[in-house]
Amino acid sequence: MTAIPTCPEEFHIFDTSLRDGAQQEGLRLTVADKLKIAVYLDELGVTFIEGGWPGASPSDTQFFAEAAQVLDLRTSKLVAFGATRRPGGSASTDVLTRALVDAGTDYVCIVAKSHDEHVIRALRTTLEENLEMIRDTVTFLINEGKHVFVDCEHFFDGYRANPAYALSVVRTASEAGAEVVVLCDTNGGMLPSWMGDIVSAAAQTGANLGVHCHNDTACAVANTMAAVEAGVMHVQGTFNGYGERTGNADLSALIPNLQLKFGWELLPPERLSEITRVAHAIALVAHQPLLGRQPYVGQSSFAHKAGLHASAIKVDPNLYQHIDPALVGNDLRMLISDMAGRANIQIKGEQLGIDLSDRELAARITDKVKAKEAEGYSYESSDASFEMLLRQELGILDYPIQVHSWRVLSEERDGDTITEATVKLTAKGERQMVVGEGNGPVNALDMALRKAVATAYPEVAEFELTDYRVRILDEGHGTDATVRTLIDTSWRGETWTTVGVGTNVIEASWEALLDAIVYGIFTHIASD
Amino acid sequence: MTAIPTCPEEFHIFDTSLRDGAQQEGLRLTVADKLKIAVYLDELGVTFIEGGWPGASPSDTQFFAEAAQVLDLRTSKLVAFGATRRPGGSASTDVLTRALVDAGTDYVCIVAKSHDEHVIRALRTTLEENLEMIRDTVTFLINEGKHVFVDCEHFFDGYRANPAYALSVVRTASEAGAEVVVLCDTNGGMLPSWMGDIVSAAAQTGANLGVHCHNDTACAVANTMAAVEAGVMHVQGTFNGYGERTGNADLSALIPNLQLKFGWELLPPERLSEITRVAHAIALVAHQPLLGRQPYVGQSSFAHKAGLHASAIKVDPNLYQHIDPALVGNDLRMLISDMAGRANIQIKGEQLGIDLSDRELAARITDKVKAKEAEGYSYESSDASFEMLLRQELGILDYPIQVHSWRVLSEERDGDTITEATVKLTAKGERQMVVGEGNGPVNALDMALRKAVATAYPEVAEFELTDYRVRILDEGHGTDATVRTLIDTSWRGETWTTVGVGTNVIEASWEALLDAIVYGIFTHIASD
Repeated sequence: MTAIPTCPEEFHIFDTSLRDGAQQEGLRLTVADKLKIAVYLDELGVTFIEGGWPGASPSDTQFFAEAAQVLDLRTSKLVAFGATRRPGGSASTDVLTRALVDAGTDYVCIVAKSHDEHVIRALRTTLEENLEMIRDTVTFLINEGKHVFVDCEHFFDGYRANPAYALSVVRTASEAGAEVVVLCDTNGGMLPSWMGDIVSAAAQTGANLGVHCHNDTACAVANTMAAVEAGVMHVQGTFNGYGERTGNADLSALIPNLQLKFGWELLPPERLSEITRVAHAIALVAHQPLLGRQPYVGQSSFAHKAGLHASAIKVDPNLYQHIDPALVGNDLRMLISDMAGRANIQIKGEQLGIDLSDRELAARITDKVKAKEAEGYSYESSDASFEMLLRQELGILDYPIQVHSWRVLSEERDGDTITEATVKLTAKGERQMVVGEGNGPVNALDMALRKAVATAYPEVAEFELTDYRVRILDEGHGTDATVRTLIDTSWRGETWTTVGVGTNVIEASWEALLDAIVYGIFTHIASD
Repeated sequence: MTAIPTCPEEFHIFDTSLRDGAQQEGLRLTVADKLKIAVYLDELGVTFIEGGWPGASPSDTQFFAEAAQVLDLRTSKLVAFGATRRPGGSASTDVLTRALVDAGTDYVCIVAKSHDEHVIRALRTTLEENLEMIRDTVTFLINEGKHVFVDCEHFFDGYRANPAYALSVVRTASEAGAEVVVLCDTNGGMLPSWMGDIVSAAAQTGANLGVHCHNDTACAVANTMAAVEAGVMHVQGTFNGYGERTGNADLSALIPNLQLKFGWELLPPERLSEITRVAHAIALVAHQPLLGRQPYVGQSSFAHKAGLHASAIKVDPNLYQHIDPALVGNDLRMLISDMAGRANIQIKGEQLGIDLSDRELAARITDKVKAKEAEGYSYESSDASFEMLLRQELGILDYPIQVHSWRVLSEERDGDTITEATVKLTAKGERQMVVGEGNGPVNALDMALRKAVATAYPEVAEFELTDYRVRILDEGHGTDATVRTLIDTSWRGETWTTVGVGTNVIEASWEALLDAIVYGIFTHIASD
C-alpha cells in the first residue's frame, strides 16, 4: 500500500531556479544574485544548475561569462538553456545555437516542441521539419562537445492530442544523442493519476526520461513524484517553487520527499539538513518572503499552536510530526508557549556566551523580547540588536558615543537631487559636528555618522553598510504606518544585522544605523 | 490514460477555514472576521462550513451564538467541531459534548483517535474504551437530533501501523450512525500513490468516506484528489490552504480541479467564476497576502512573462494556458519585462485600448521598455507607469502639472523625529507652494504634493497611497546603490501602481509619487 520505487542508478536533481524560476512575476535576478544562488545550490549539491538562456537576454549571456570566471562549483554542473534552431535554417549558423555553444558549459538543455498543434500554429512549420530541427540541433551540439538534454514542451498535452507524434519527438531526440529527454507539463494542467501511463508510454522509446512540472493544479510536486514512480531519472524544479505563472515543482519539498519518503540517498544526510538554510538564503537573494507554511523549510512547518497537540507532543514529538525536522535543518516550534520562549532565549544566550540559566533573568528577558516584538522589532534575523538588548538588560552595555542631534535634507536643485545629513555627537570626550552627503537620507546619515565617530574610532570608517531592508508592518496604510528596517554591516569579513522600528522610516533607520556602529565598536574594536 | 471518475450522487465540499485554517501561525480571526468569511463561503456555495470548537475556546462559543442570530446561510450548512467524550465518562454529561449540542447547528463533526499508539500513549486509555467513546458520543449526538460526521485522526498513519484497529474505528463510527467517516492525514506525511489502497480498504467497511489532508509533503490537493479517485464523497479543506503547520488542502485549487479537470458540476458555473474574488476576499479578512502564484486564483496564475510564450498567445491564448481563466474569474495577464518581446507589448496595448499593431512602433516601444528595465524600472507590476510610457512614446501624454522644485527635511528635535516637505508646482495655471508633514520623507512629500495639486483637482485629496515598496537593485552596495520604488495608489475602489528608479531613494519615490498623481488625474478625473 505504500509502494516505494527503487532509485535509478543515475538520478538527476536539475534546478532551474535561475532560468524558469526567474520567469516568476516580480522576481528579478541580477547577475550577482544568480551567482550567489548558484553557490548555495552547489553547497546543497543539486546535480545540475540551469543558469539561463544565453543570447536571448544580455544579462543571461553575461551570467555565463562571469560564471566561467568566478564560479568554482564543487558538486553541481552548470547548464545553459536554449532552443532548437529556427525552421528552415541550420544549427551551425543559428545565432542562438551559437550563443549556446559560446556559453562555455559542458551541459546544454534545449527546448523542442512536441505538441503537433504548437508546431503547426505557433512555430508555423511542418511536423517533419520540427523533428529535423531537433536532430540537427542535438547533433550539432554534440559535435561541439556538449552533453545535451532536450525539454519536450507541452509533452503531456501533446501526447493526449497526438500520441504518435509526441513519442516520435522523444524518439528523435534520444536517437540523435540527447542524454535525457524531459517531458514537460508546460501549461501545468496535469493530475498525478494521469502521469503514469503517459510516462510509461514514453519510456517504451528507450530514452532516458526526465520530468518538468508546473503547479497550475497545485500538483507540481505530486505530478513529479508520480513521474518518478513511473521511472523518470531526472527531475526539474526550482527552489521555493518559483516560476512562470503558478511556479515550478518546489525542490525544497521534492528533494526531502524523495530522500525521506522513498529513502533515496540523493544528498548526504548532512547536506539535506542544510536545505532549510539554503531555501531561506535563496529567498533572501531573490527578495521574496518565504511562505511560513512552505513544506519542510517554512518557519511554521513544524510549529504547533498550543492545545490538543501540545500534550501529545510532551509525550513524544513524533506523534504530531511526519518527520524529524532536524533532518531538513528545521525545528519543532511551540507557539504561545512561555516555556518554549524561555528555552529559546537561554539557547541563544548560550550561543553568545552569556549565561542565562537563571530562570528569573531568562523570564524577564523573554518578557522584554515579547514586548519589543509586539512593537515591531524582530530579533530572529538581527542577532546584533538582540545581543545589545541582552547586554542592556544585564547592565553591561557601555555606549561609546553620545548623540546630540541629527537631521537630513533632500531637495531637487536644478534637476539634481541632493541629500545632506548633519550629525552632532560626542565620542571619547570630543564633540563632533559633521555633514555627509549621500544617495538618499539613510546613506547620508550613515556617511555623516561614520565620519563623526571615526575621529575617535578610525576603524569605523571601514564599516560598510551592505544591506538595507524596509518592511511596512501594518500593510494597507501606505507610508503612514509602522516600519521596521534591518541593516547589515560588514567589516573585515564579519557581518552583523541590526533592527530599528518607528512610524518614521528615517527614525527607524537611524536606530538601526546607530546600533550597527555601536555593536561594531564594542564587539570588534577593543574599547579603552 | 486520463481516467475521470464519476461524481458520487452526494458529494460534500467541507470548508474548515474557520476551524483548522485558524490554526495557522500568524492567522487570527475575530468573531466578526469569521462571520464575514462564512458569508463569502455561502455565496460561493460550499456544502459545509465548520465554524470552530464551541466550549474549547470562548470566541468559538461566541461565534456560534452570534451565527445563530445574524447568519442567514442560503446554500451552506454550518458545522460545529468537537471531540469524542473523555475516557471513562459519559457523552451525556461531558462538558464539551454538551457545548457541542448547545452550539445549535444541525451538523456536528467530532474527532476520534484511530491510531492505536495515540490511543494508548496520548489518550492513555484502552483500544476498546476508545471505540466505546465513539459509539457513545455519536449515539448521544444523534439522539440530540444532530447529523454527525467523525474525523478519524491520524487514520493513514494508524492504518499503516495497525490496519485492523484503524478499520474498526471506521466501522464503529459508521455503525453508530456517523453519516460520513473522514480519513485524516493529520501529520500530512502521505503521498498520492499511497492513498488509493488505504481508502479502498476503508471503503470495505461500507461507511461513507471523507478525506482531510495537510500539505507537509506539498501534496495536500493531490492526496485529496487521489482519495476522491478512490471513492470518497466528502473533501475537507480550507481557502487559500490556511491551516496548522503547512496548511490544509486548498479549496481554491481543489474545487476547480474537481469541476474543470473531472467535469463535475459541484458549483453552478457562474458561482465557480466567483472563486477568485472569494479567495481574495477571504485573504483580505484574514489579513494574509494572497500568494501571486496561488493556483487558479493568484494574480500571477495566468500571467506570462516569456517572449516565447507571448508570440504563441497572440496566435491562441489556449496554447499556453491549461484552462480559460474566466472560468474561475481570473484573467490572462501579459507581463512587460526585459524578457518580453514585441508580442507582449502588443497584447498589453490592446488591453489598454491602444493600437500597437504597427510593427515598427511596437518594436520601438519594446526597445524603450528594455532600456528602461535595464536602468532598473519594472513594468510587470506597474501597469500605470507602463501606460504613461506608452502615451509618452505616442505623444498623447499631457502633463496636467508642472513641478518647479521640492525638498524634504528630517531631523531629531528634543527626542522627536520631524519630517517636513515643501513642494512648488503649477496646476491649471496657478502656482502653488505647499508644506506637508509626515512619518517619513515619502509620506511628507506625498502629503505636500497632494495638497498642492488638490487646489486644481480636488479629487486628488482622496487619493490614498496604499502600498510602498523599496527594492535595492545592486545588493552588496548598501544604501549607495540604485533603488526601485513601487507605489500603489487607491481611489474609489480602483488601484494603480507606479514605479520610480534612481540612485537616490527619495528621487525614485518622488518619480513614482508624481506618476501616481498624474496617472490618476488623466485616467480617472475628466481633464478640462
